[in-house]
Amino acid sequence: MTDNGASRIQGRSLRELADEYGTPLYVYDSEAFARQYHGLREELHPRVEMFFSLKSNPNLSVCSLLGSFGARAEVSSLVELRTALKAGIGPEDIIFLGPGKSRAELEACLDEGIYAIVCESFGELEVLDGLAAARGLAAPVALRVNPAFAVKGARLTMGGKPRQFGIDEQILYDTPDLAARFPSVRLMGVHAYMGTRILSEGVIEENTAKILEMAERIAERLDFPLELVDIGGGLGVAYFSGETDLDVTVLTERINPVLDKFAATHPDTRMIMELGRYLTAPAGDYVVRVRYVKESMGENFAVTDGGTHHHMAAVGIGSFVKRNFPVRLVDAAPDAETEPWNVTGPLCTPNDTLVTKAPLPELRPGDLLAIGRSGAYGPTASPGLFLSHGYPAEVLVHEGRALLVRERDTTDDLFSKQRLHEFPRR
Amino acid sequence: MTDNGASRIQGRSLRELADEYGTPLYVYDSEAFARQYHGLREELHPRVEMFFSLKSNPNLSVCSLLGSFGARAEVSSLVELRTALKAGIGPEDIIFLGPGKSRAELEACLDEGIYAIVCESFGELEVLDGLAAARGLAAPVALRVNPAFAVKGARLTMGGKPRQFGIDEQILYDTPDLAARFPSVRLMGVHAYMGTRILSEGVIEENTAKILEMAERIAERLDFPLELVDIGGGLGVAYFSGETDLDVTVLTERINPVLDKFAATHPDTRMIMELGRYLTAPAGDYVVRVRYVKESMGENFAVTDGGTHHHMAAVGIGSFVKRNFPVRLVDAAPDAETEPWNVTGPLCTPNDTLVTKAPLPELRPGDLLAIGRSGAYGPTASPGLFLSHGYPAEVLVHEGRALLVRERDTTDDLFSKQRLHEFPRR
Repeated sequence: MTDNGASRIQGRSLRELADEYGTPLYVYDSEAFARQYHGLREELHPRVEMFFSLKSNPNLSVCSLLGSFGARAEVSSLVELRTALKAGIGPEDIIFLGPGKSRAELEACLDEGIYAIVCESFGELEVLDGLAAARGLAAPVALRVNPAFAVKGARLTMGGKPRQFGIDEQILYDTPDLAARFPSVRLMGVHAYMGTRILSEGVIEENTAKILEMAERIAERLDFPLELVDIGGGLGVAYFSGETDLDVTVLTERINPVLDKFAATHPDTRMIMELGRYLTAPAGDYVVRVRYVKESMGENFAVTDGGTHHHMAAVGIGSFVKRNFPVRLVDAAPDAETEPWNVTGPLCTPNDTLVTKAPLPELRPGDLLAIGRSGAYGPTASPGLFLSHGYPAEVLVHEGRALLVRERDTTDDLFSKQRLHEFPRR
Repeated sequence: MTDNGASRIQGRSLRELADEYGTPLYVYDSEAFARQYHGLREELHPRVEMFFSLKSNPNLSVCSLLGSFGARAEVSSLVELRTALKAGIGPEDIIFLGPGKSRAELEACLDEGIYAIVCESFGELEVLDGLAAARGLAAPVALRVNPAFAVKGARLTMGGKPRQFGIDEQILYDTPDLAARFPSVRLMGVHAYMGTRILSEGVIEENTAKILEMAERIAERLDFPLELVDIGGGLGVAYFSGETDLDVTVLTERINPVLDKFAATHPDTRMIMELGRYLTAPAGDYVVRVRYVKESMGENFAVTDGGTHHHMAAVGIGSFVKRNFPVRLVDAAPDAETEPWNVTGPLCTPNDTLVTKAPLPELRPGDLLAIGRSGAYGPTASPGLFLSHGYPAEVLVHEGRALLVRERDTTDDLFSKQRLHEFPRR
């Protein structure tokens, strides 16, 4: 997918930013975050609260920006919890998920008084019950359910098969006395997550309807008041040729009636939608500089300073087929003719390829390329220490100003946690 | 693959190490490094020098240990170069590879006086020529060649197709005046790397023979003295069921005559073999602790504290088929009956699975599992910041003593490079 997008963000030249902060560089656009957030917020059923999934981009300033729009937070680790709190999101608007929470994480959930702990196993309920009892608290718990059904159309389906996530729906029905078993746990909600990268409005509607029905069923059978229902998320964005972004109007026309029906019969239930990639992916560019160009067996190669170690998703490690994220030459001449280019990184592995045979103008050393749709699952989802290169700088452009929100790793940083024991040569 | 290996390393109990340093934890065994190094060194042709590829495990102390055995260093970044030097490997025994070297990296190569810079494009030769001229030096350069031929039997074949690596063999023949074009470059060697994870002695023999022939051909056509030939490496280790380790005796019986023939006619040429995974993989365990066990739709799951973020290779991201690294329960009863277990990590993705349906004794919270053969491409090749968990501690056991060689990331570490810009709520 070639994107003939902008070479400026809010009037700031990507070239100037690259010169000032160095490359490789992540550049985020506050207006793009705002468009994604408010575009959905304005049309989504007003009772649904939008929870930002920090895992997609856990940068403190990004979290603060989304919090300023009104986003609540879905966190999955102690550091993500601390990030949300530092970013100004109140504990009453934070939920904590994850199949393998540590005791320290559960303790922090209780001590900070977050809104709900999404529990994923009886073992976790037992640990939490003990911790809450020791504090004289009742731990607010939403049950993550592994539904007996699956929804088609997601990239990674999470329902209807054996999984490490949640508790099987059937096992819950077989345990109607669950609440009584854990007296310091207050069952108050149901969570389900059906899949990721969904680009079909119909799938999301079906997903939502089934989860709401299941939540009612579970709360009734296990006899607890449904204070919270989390319909998960999984809203995708288009990365590749042939994919189309979700249409917010179509989406909300389909799901709002479903949500409205539930809302009307559950006036006191908080309805939660989790949004990660959807909010952050379109707001980021990964900017790399061409170091060398070469030809090999008739194909064009541009070797850049960035790749797998910062942006594994674009490289496509973990995908069965290599497909190209949108890529553009910064400051390209408007009518430049294109030819197919392979754009690679500096690593010593043939996998380290950002785009394959992408139509681009002739590339030269020093040129800047921007990989679009890179605001989600970028540096923090990449092996930044590979070949000891370190993690890149990240800049957030807001109201025409560039804010450095993550400093580049230095050589000293890469040694700071290591200890040298000297072994004498024999 | 299930490994009923040891629960102790050099007499040190893995359980005690896990209690002292926490989990997840990488534990390296100096004796295993020594076995791999000396086992090959004693049988390999004496003229071949063994260069340690730091990318497989760039820890300072691991590098120092291998250096103490006599290993030289193959590095691919500025920090790897600094690591090798700090670890006591002399510049005369260091070569620098990589398709996208920065100016700073090339400058460091010249300023440190390393043995050879392995150049991969005409563009790189041009930059290096300029830097060397400015210093009044002649830069020692080995040409990395993308051979016209391929060798079968490697996991990632690197010859015979369009690649970002090296210069096409044919293009070199078409440029017989290469040396004259770059007067401050001294052409002195040839490098080729044919593939990775090779487990066939015959493939390595064929590989070696072809590279040596090609090196002679190139030096002759381009008219430079062959001071160095680097036959690459790519020696694999068995990870999965059905794979077998290379047999050093068989291997050396096959390649030594090939090497000897070359050595006899080239008495002054340094002959280099690169070894990364082969030296380091067998020497490491990744030790994780079970947090929760559960059943889902008839399958057993153990949710542990470690996974993709520390050991992406074991999880198998990037592989087409999920196969299990060797796994063992630490302190298992000798005759414990086994059943199939899925062992997962704490991340919120179904990919975060260390082993699938591995035969293991019944697991309980608190149990320790060791993933074997984890000394190569472990933490530094994994997305350690994913879900903000951070990189794990690494311990090297030597002469019965545990040496902490990498401290665990703390919460503060995970915030230290970020900057918070507070956006007020509207």
